[in-house]
Amino acid sequence: MIERYTRAELAEHWSDKRRFETWLAVELAACEAMESEGSVPAGTAEAVRARAAGQLSPERIAEIEATTRHDVIAFLTHVEEVAGEPARWLHLGLTSSDVLDTSLALLCADAGSRLCAGVDALRGALADRAKEHRHTPMIGRSHGIHAEPTTAGLVFARWYAELGRARARLSRATEGVRVGKIAGAVGTYASMSPAIEARALAALGLSPEPCASQVVARDRHAEFLTALSAVGNAVEQIAVGVRHWQRTEVGEAEEGFSAGQKGSSAMPHKKNPILSENLTGLSRLLRSYAGAALENVVLWHERDISHSSVERVILPDATTAADFMLARAAGLVRNLVINPARMRDNLERTGGLYASEAVMLTLVRRGELPRQRAYEIVQRCALAAHRGEGAFFDLLAGDPDVKAHLDKADLERAFDTEHHLRHVDVIFERVFPSGSAGAADGERESKDG
Amino acid sequence: MIERYTRAELAEHWSDKRRFETWLAVELAACEAMESEGSVPAGTAEAVRARAAGQLSPERIAEIEATTRHDVIAFLTHVEEVAGEPARWLHLGLTSSDVLDTSLALLCADAGSRLCAGVDALRGALADRAKEHRHTPMIGRSHGIHAEPTTAGLVFARWYAELGRARARLSRATEGVRVGKIAGAVGTYASMSPAIEARALAALGLSPEPCASQVVARDRHAEFLTALSAVGNAVEQIAVGVRHWQRTEVGEAEEGFSAGQKGSSAMPHKKNPILSENLTGLSRLLRSYAGAALENVVLWHERDISHSSVERVILPDATTAADFMLARAAGLVRNLVINPARMRDNLERTGGLYASEAVMLTLVRRGELPRQRAYEIVQRCALAAHRGEGAFFDLLAGDPDVKAHLDKADLERAFDTEHHLRHVDVIFERVFPSGSAGAADGERESKDG
Amino acid sequence: MIERYTRAELAEHWSDKRRFETWLAVELAACEAMESEGSVPAGTAEAVRARAAGQLSPERIAEIEATTRHDVIAFLTHVEEVAGEPARWLHLGLTSSDVLDTSLALLCADAGSRLCAGVDALRGALADRAKEHRHTPMIGRSHGIHAEPTTAGLVFARWYAELGRARARLSRATEGVRVGKIAGAVGTYASMSPAIEARALAALGLSPEPCASQVVARDRHAEFLTALSAVGNAVEQIAVGVRHWQRTEVGEAEEGFSAGQKGSSAMPHKKNPILSENLTGLSRLLRSYAGAALENVVLWHERDISHSSVERVILPDATTAADFMLARAAGLVRNLVINPARMRDNLERTGGLYASEAVMLTLVRRGELPRQRAYEIVQRCALAAHRGEGAFFDLLAGDPDVKAHLDKADLERAFDTEHHLRHVDVIFERVFPSGSAGAADGERESKDG
Amino acid sequence: MIERYTRAELAEHWSDKRRFETWLAVELAACEAMESEGSVPAGTAEAVRARAAGQLSPERIAEIEATTRHDVIAFLTHVEEVAGEPARWLHLGLTSSDVLDTSLALLCADAGSRLCAGVDALRGALADRAKEHRHTPMIGRSHGIHAEPTTAGLVFARWYAELGRARARLSRATEGVRVGKIAGAVGTYASMSPAIEARALAALGLSPEPCASQVVARDRHAEFLTALSAVGNAVEQIAVGVRHWQRTEVGEAEEGFSAGQKGSSAMPHKKNPILSENLTGLSRLLRSYAGAALENVVLWHERDISHSSVERVILPDATTAADFMLARAAGLVRNLVINPARMRDNLERTGGLYASEAVMLTLVRRGELPRQRAYEIVQRCALAAHRGEGAFFDLLAGDPDVKAHLDKADLERAFDTEHHLRHVDVIFERVFPSGSAGAADGERESKDG
Repeated sequence: MIERYTRAELAEHWSDKRRFETWLAVELAACEAMESEGSVPAGTAEAVRARAAGQLSPERIAEIEATTRHDVIAFLTHVEEVAGEPARWLHLGLTSSDVLDTSLALLCADAGSRLCAGVDALRGALADRAKEHRHTPMIGRSHGIHAEPTTAGLVFARWYAELGRARARLSRATEGVRVGKIAGAVGTYASMSPAIEARALAALGLSPEPCASQVVARDRHAEFLTALSAVGNAVEQIAVGVRHWQRTEVGEAEEGFSAGQKGSSAMPHKKNPILSENLTGLSRLLRSYAGAALENVVLWHERDISHSSVERVILPDATTAADFMLARAAGLVRNLVINPARMRDNLERTGGLYASEAVMLTLVRRGELPRQRAYEIVQRCALAAHRGEGAFFDLLAGDPDVKAHLDKADLERAFDTEHHLRHVDVIFERVFPSGSAGAADGERESKDG
Repeated sequence: MIERYTRAELAEHWSDKRRFETWLAVELAACEAMESEGSVPAGTAEAVRARAAGQLSPERIAEIEATTRHDVIAFLTHVEEVAGEPARWLHLGLTSSDVLDTSLALLCADAGSRLCAGVDALRGALADRAKEHRHTPMIGRSHGIHAEPTTAGLVFARWYAELGRARARLSRATEGVRVGKIAGAVGTYASMSPAIEARALAALGLSPEPCASQVVARDRHAEFLTALSAVGNAVEQIAVGVRHWQRTEVGEAEEGFSAGQKGSSAMPHKKNPILSENLTGLSRLLRSYAGAALENVVLWHERDISHSSVERVILPDATTAADFMLARAAGLVRNLVINPARMRDNLERTGGLYASEAVMLTLVRRGELPRQRAYEIVQRCALAAHRGEGAFFDLLAGDPDVKAHLDKADLERAFDTEHHLRHVDVIFERVFPSGSAGAADGERESKDG
Repeated sequence: MIERYTRAELAEHWSDKRRFETWLAVELAACEAMESEGSVPAGTAEAVRARAAGQLSPERIAEIEATTRHDVIAFLTHVEEVAGEPARWLHLGLTSSDVLDTSLALLCADAGSRLCAGVDALRGALADRAKEHRHTPMIGRSHGIHAEPTTAGLVFARWYAELGRARARLSRATEGVRVGKIAGAVGTYASMSPAIEARALAALGLSPEPCASQVVARDRHAEFLTALSAVGNAVEQIAVGVRHWQRTEVGEAEEGFSAGQKGSSAMPHKKNPILSENLTGLSRLLRSYAGAALENVVLWHERDISHSSVERVILPDATTAADFMLARAAGLVRNLVINPARMRDNLERTGGLYASEAVMLTLVRRGELPRQRAYEIVQRCALAAHRGEGAFFDLLAGDPDVKAHLDKADLERAFDTEHHLRHVDVIFERVFPSGSAGAADGERESKDG
Repeated sequence: MIERYTRAELAEHWSDKRRFETWLAVELAACEAMESEGSVPAGTAEAVRARAAGQLSPERIAEIEATTRHDVIAFLTHVEEVAGEPARWLHLGLTSSDVLDTSLALLCADAGSRLCAGVDALRGALADRAKEHRHTPMIGRSHGIHAEPTTAGLVFARWYAELGRARARLSRATEGVRVGKIAGAVGTYASMSPAIEARALAALGLSPEPCASQVVARDRHAEFLTALSAVGNAVEQIAVGVRHWQRTEVGEAEEGFSAGQKGSSAMPHKKNPILSENLTGLSRLLRSYAGAALENVVLWHERDISHSSVERVILPDATTAADFMLARAAGLVRNLVINPARMRDNLERTGGLYASEAVMLTLVRRGELPRQRAYEIVQRCALAAHRGEGAFFDLLAGDPDVKAHLDKADLERAFDTEHHLRHVDVIFERVFPSGSAGAADGERESKDG
């Protein structure tokens, strides 16, 4: 991923240095497992660790690879250079993929855990804003058109809930890639044993692939990348929401604008929702990486290596972009300037058209009118209001068909936003159950995810 | 989906008739919930059901929709035509999406359950072939090149395991879409109550969306469609495997060829793996539908309806194609003609090159040679064999460096395929745990998926 | 494609009947070419045509295919049933793909031509609205935020131009698929000759694949489907534009609302941009079909048939959806209700902030201020206006730094929308060159596409 | 793109340094155009160029951007730091996108031209191998099954032709992005003029966007990226071909294996087609970038900036990966070790089943048998041969139905591979027209592309 969208931690996470250290950790875990079975002299791993840990040179490995054209062989050659004689016991009975895929499991699972933490931070910000604006009324919109009242807090709560489902998927997918494999060239343990694998993987915190080919199955990584795209979509949902709110004509919220920031090189008056637009684009990247991952699953026979070039790019790129997005989104949410007055203005700008359903239902329930008849009466007044022939309330109050069935108090209740919003607390209780810690709530989400 | 790839059950499942019946079921469930609260006269739902169930005319509804341009209003109008006065109580306080999305939940969840059954049937076929060929040796191949021995049964077991993970995803995604919503125009229950929703959805076997907009959140459907693509990939993995096996030069298995079948209009000698090729293509379709679904998640404000046209196509198309694929793949696996003699021939055609690792490791372990040195010795003999200068075994047996460290019995063990395959039963036990029923096994899979 | 998104012509175009008629046309063209070379008795094609044209039964062919499992053989068997003895001369030396791919070329090229006509019709509608509103001022928006004035006509012109580029791509891609192949099992003309192919394809209006495998190369179809997605994107651009215009707070245009139409089952006041939302979704479908087509290009050796199942679905589905979209979009554009008064209101609602750049540039040019200094002065007044501290014009007029350099006439010119829009005619002349017919214009577009 | 898949030229091409130099070139071209119109003092551009060209510091610009949060403003500020007073005349009347998009046009068009050269080099390698093996017979395969004879040269010719179509698309798409825009904040030339744009763009070798929004239309970049994916597919087609040829059982060609190269850390005998597998994967990346580009076209109103983050990643990544692929593929093709003897062996391993169509057609033509009857006779002998009951030729020669119509010379001609391949030169003449230079050939390709 380009520097602009890479945070330091993820850059370090996917560095060559970290990769080779992880390879070494896997080789040493396998070696220790063999030591415990007696097929490798006791103390070998310890001796190699003492000399090689933290001492590997990615540059030197690249140099050797230029000749061998094989990265793991280049790595092992370098470890022998650094650690000397005991290193010759490493990799005994292993195939490259045993090291590569087990390391990849460690790196992916770790990245997945970091990203889960990033989701949690963003959800924390959303929860705060949701509670802050639990009862801030705003107009709900469908099709971009005013519908009925809702509250700003409900919107944040919805984003929080969607992100909870995304987190549950990411968390499961992270478990799905926490699977290593030390089973030899075609997964048969021809030169080693399931027991050695079990011991080595347990030491690394991984499960074994139950029935491996030469590699760990790639459907696991495809699930991981589609889960990242689900996280991306949840962030994009927030971003698109903010972009709509910040539109000049809407103005219900706007991104925090830092001191010194300039919106446009040409137009000094501009304050643009650029963070949100940026996040919208990054989500497209995550979708495209998910697409590549879905193509990467099917391999020839006991494996072909076509998936490798794809993964070298998309696993770092997707996790790094997702990490960046989550951090940026959390800042966006925390710094978002919300304008309740403008929300109220917009809510009222249609003269109460949001009450049209409530009036219609009152006509049906109280007036015992057939639904279609009630619909026509209310639509007639609504379209007149839309044409500017008067306020919707007044037009209704003056309509003979309405007057025949409803009195003014009926109408007033239909126009009362507090009445519209009387169930908000119930919804909040479902999203943020009182007495539940975040973790318990995570559990709950994962059940309905 | 085109007729060619549609089985009768799925055609019926996604028919207009079924859709309108499901809408009616939702309206009646909501109505009964309101009856129990007293806001609708008792007996209304029963009266409507008595007259309308099974009596709705999709053609008439289409006729009305041509005027209203609104499908749910057209439907309600028709229900009033058929069921008369009591029908006017239907849909009271509901918005169209309450009906549409709750119905969609029923239809998707039902389709998901059928597909899970389809996966189970295919897994059953794979389990049978796996057990049948548990010990049938064949050469394992990486990069398309002979590697080391495996067994045909292990390949089937691997497919079975991958499909188990796909099933676990599909099953979870099916639970994810088993979520309805009867919460009004913007999800606030403005004209009804959470209690009514809870009662109605429970009657339909659904959970409520915890924090709905006008609609059920679309990340759920995206998960469903990516899970279908995972199923597609697992089927494609089988298909690509069969295509490789059936290649003229490989010939290790071939699709059953029915009486009267013709392989080619031009070439009477041809028997082509057309079922597998067909399945390979259909998996591409499932990937593309998943891509569309991932784009379908983010909506404007409390909803826009851009997702609707996409879903009208991809939900039926993807589930129908997947159903077809699963049935076709199960037949393919059951009827696959496996040729163990050819497997054995191929295994032996390289004169034992598959033993190269075993020889090298024996040199390291017994001969205490450095790994790189052992590698060079064995590679030297292997390349000579590859150039046709003799049998690999003989070249090794005659090599002075080998002779200095190993005797003939050492070499013979390295070439012994039974020794290579000594751990097969352990792997089988992991994939098909003895004493576990299929269901239990499904449970287990879902934990590691 | 589902009925809802299928127009009658395209349904007929992709019907079984039409397909088998096209196959027959190809067989007869090949037969006549062979007659002219003497390898088939003269009059054979004529005799078969006399008995079979218009007489083929798709049902009967399906019946035969159930046994042969091969569609072309089933077709030929049926032709022999219908046309008797002379039919045995058909298909001599041909392979199935000769017939299938040559037919597909005819069907795709014909569909492409229809779609080009559909694009032209939509462009016609856009040109009309562009000219109608060439000088209707509206605020231009970037990032959803007011920027500087533009005109409604320019927006339509931009859509027209983008669609021109899309048409050029579609037209080229249509030529790309207008390529048949009658070259035998692996493209070597083993049982026929290039001369026969040349004669037959010329009679059908097609070019030969210069170097065929068993099939016509699939990169051609991938180009065709990506071109369709470009058309889809151009339509989606219009649709998203309309959706923004129709938002309650913007209200600058709205979809025509037919008599009897109902916007919402719950809310009688709603008028939603449902056509545009529908088109937005359909474009996602076209993107996903393009994705499947890109996966469909690479085949094994001289062909595998994995592409076939994909094409059977996506070629009809994508062309049918595109045809529907173009027709719907043309109606949408023609019936769009445009509200110039509202455009003017919105333009003016920021009190002239759109003039900020013009003021800044005047300060630089006339006042010889450094750009950064001018920027700060104007931004200061703009943010004050944004905070509601006064009208932007007045704040500027009262600002000592502004007063030091500019007089009121300078400011007035900077705020003058006519001055802002003085180059509109030049742009129109580029998009709609005077004196050019539509065709010539199409030519021009294809050069810059 | 990661270093592993980045060649030095492309790394430099997409460096920050090059980007800022290109921005400067655009600012100076616009400045010179304004000088010629008199709105900027003569000599300004020259003065800035003298001080700033080659002197810009990406690090310093990044530092400033940390405050302004706006890259172009940071750049301009830095140019003023470096070039002093005259720099204040830069950017006058321009909006950021004027600079960014015009620069992007230069960078993309230049990358496109480099890639076209890369395609040419690969095509050169393919042409050489095609001509070298024009008459090297090999079995043609459909469905992975032996069909009829072809030649190795024809396969290379086919790849050459597909790549020719891909090049034509890339070349057109490169022209499509060779389009700049200096038209102000919403494309209306509010603070400048079309004449200035025309002059500036002409100096840079670009055309103007006929009807710009704030930006150059993004359908152009989508076409560019889908064209790159077409190049990727053409390379993948070669790669998949080589992978099949190199399979152990096929062995018709293999990737050159350099001295010191190691195929496997575990198995010293392995020589794997890793270059081809690598290229197969990289093509998936290009498909996924094309998918992101297709999502990147539709913008809000006169532009939103959601496309920007996507482009910052995919334009460098896709062009860099494509450049790497083309270079790697050219080396692969040049160094490919082709094994004509093995091709001949494989051709003959089915005992002449490839002649089945020829025999059948001879029966129809000479024997005047109905096609279906001839088919059955030949299929009967072919299946017997497949079952190992004798050589196909002998079974036919001994079949009473065959003997009744054909003599041995008839059969021999049907089995004669030279007869099968008699039209190869005609196909070569179409793909490599004698007397045509490469360029002319490119022209020709672009017509049928």
